[in-house]
Amino acid sequence: MSERARRILMLGEGFSHDPHYGKTMRGIIRYGPDPVVAILDSRRAGAEHEGIPIVGTVAEALVYEPSVAVVGVATQGGRFPPAWRELLKACIAHGLSIESGLHEFVSEDPELTELARRHGVELRDLRKPPEGLNVPSGANLEVPAKIVLTVGSDCAIGKKTVAIELDLEARRRGLRSVFVPTGQTGIAIAGWGIAVDAVVADFLAGAAERLVVEGHARGGELLFVEGQGSLVHPLYSGVTLGLFHGSVPHALVLCHRAGATEIEGCPGHPIPPLSTLVRLHEEVSLPARRARVAGIALNTADLDDRDARAAVQRAADETGLPADDPVRFGAAPLLDAVLASL
Amino acid sequence: MSERARRILMLGEGFSHDPHYGKTMRGIIRYGPDPVVAILDSRRAGAEHEGIPIVGTVAEALVYEPSVAVVGVATQGGRFPPAWRELLKACIAHGLSIESGLHEFVSEDPELTELARRHGVELRDLRKPPEGLNVPSGANLEVPAKIVLTVGSDCAIGKKTVAIELDLEARRRGLRSVFVPTGQTGIAIAGWGIAVDAVVADFLAGAAERLVVEGHARGGELLFVEGQGSLVHPLYSGVTLGLFHGSVPHALVLCHRAGATEIEGCPGHPIPPLSTLVRLHEEVSLPARRARVAGIALNTADLDDRDARAAVQRAADETGLPADDPVRFGAAPLLDAVLASL
Repeated sequence: MSERARRILMLGEGFSHDPHYGKTMRGIIRYGPDPVVAILDSRRAGAEHEGIPIVGTVAEALVYEPSVAVVGVATQGGRFPPAWRELLKACIAHGLSIESGLHEFVSEDPELTELARRHGVELRDLRKPPEGLNVPSGANLEVPAKIVLTVGSDCAIGKKTVAIELDLEARRRGLRSVFVPTGQTGIAIAGWGIAVDAVVADFLAGAAERLVVEGHARGGELLFVEGQGSLVHPLYSGVTLGLFHGSVPHALVLCHRAGATEIEGCPGHPIPPLSTLVRLHEEVSLPARRARVAGIALNTADLDDRDARAAVQRAADETGLPADDPVRFGAAPLLDAVLASL
Repeated sequence: MSERARRILMLGEGFSHDPHYGKTMRGIIRYGPDPVVAILDSRRAGAEHEGIPIVGTVAEALVYEPSVAVVGVATQGGRFPPAWRELLKACIAHGLSIESGLHEFVSEDPELTELARRHGVELRDLRKPPEGLNVPSGANLEVPAKIVLTVGSDCAIGKKTVAIELDLEARRRGLRSVFVPTGQTGIAIAGWGIAVDAVVADFLAGAAERLVVEGHARGGELLFVEGQGSLVHPLYSGVTLGLFHGSVPHALVLCHRAGATEIEGCPGHPIPPLSTLVRLHEEVSLPARRARVAGIALNTADLDDRDARAAVQRAADETGLPADDPVRFGAAPLLDAVLASL
């Protein structure tokens, strides 16, 4: 990322309250290196989110001196809702650069690029694939690092957060650990990476290979790769498996939202029991590098402390594996389990 | 496809002898509606392939009056070898349209499009995704048709051919069957379809959903979907699973090359036993529509008749499922097994 101070206006219009569609916003606020000085969501103007003021218009945000507007919501399929175009134009007209993680690229939109040129601001698409992707060469299996991939029972349940928390804990212990970002929020946080869901399908595993090669080149002897989707997700499972096989993990951490029994937004698509998911992930790992589930990361955000501890215990009992909520109770025990499995 | 007579010059330079890289050529020669009048492969000029003359240059091919040059080889990763550019320019300069299934699009190449404009010929990319793809809507599960997907232990072992042979046999019996093409050769043969390996990874399952919806709209009450890659292929498994989950098959036909124990071109990547593959495919099918393997399609092209029959018997014994080589011995028994499973 650039050296100059970035001050972020987070565009959360319509979704700043939503843990699913607002997950980009929440990830950047929690883990990003640059300050989020205001959040734009006209329906909640005047309120606050974790101490950050919520404004109703771009003009109102200017008092907080933002330098870049970040699209903080992930729409299904990655398209811009039409009203967003006016919002982006207002940002550009007020001299803000734009950073977007949607599939529709702001940097390829003729109207927005012309406006950006006139106002001297940048348009950056976090999901735009790099040039020269191809199928894997086999370099992934030769990376001299231990690779850990977070997988899960659904989207938006904490696979990125768990990878980040495990990496932070590993670095606190002095390990040469690197977080490997595979989606737009992870890229916005870490400043590098490839949004694997946006590459040509044939190059999914090749993009994942490139990421673990780069993670090692960045000094990682222990790589925590951000997982995507779920093997049992009817929309995104292809991305999940391509990332899985291309990143050739030694160990998996299985993420699950406590109590969830159905894929969110997909009625009629049940989530199998945790023990079934553990077996499925291990069986579908490549014979050339079998991966074992090292532990269960349970997202207990919806529960009180007592229920959270009970849910963690049930997950451990059901699977026979170490289980914890690393966000709520700290990542140390789960990192112990991961390191013990490698 | 167009109504006028298409006469194909098959561009097989360097690979016309190769069953893997020349699989597009072989598929079109065997199942395509239009005649292949010549094959271009300078290393084999003067020879024949299944009665079709092989020539060394485009000029030599003109006596056979081709109207379109089809790129008949599938390079790894779908890129043009550099020498191919000169070959394509020669075709265009001699008034031939171009049809290509590679990832590098001829219709987006400035030099080739300018040359094509001057010579009044068309450049068609079979792998170019349609506009407006998105994630699945759930319409796939509502298609009132029985859906059969061919899956396999590797690439280029006959998944497309088995789907075509089963469809042909079903139509011979008067069933309202449709072959659903998912790759460049299938599209060249059937005249419609989407190359699912070329879509944005997030839209893999959405493209597969669109294909089964269209297969039904084309009159199919029984759909034979061409499979891609393999769940155990280290390069292409993401495409395989996205197509699997998006096409929501009721039944699978597992294709395998008799005797193969390793993924072709991927040393160190073993193929699991057939019985393991059967279980893996059934377990990874979506809970909302469990798929069963209805039978094994064994590719016995490398064996003599006696060994072929023995290999088929071993596959049946190992899996407890009906097994056959539908190309060698006819598709009737395997179709019986499929229909019995639905």
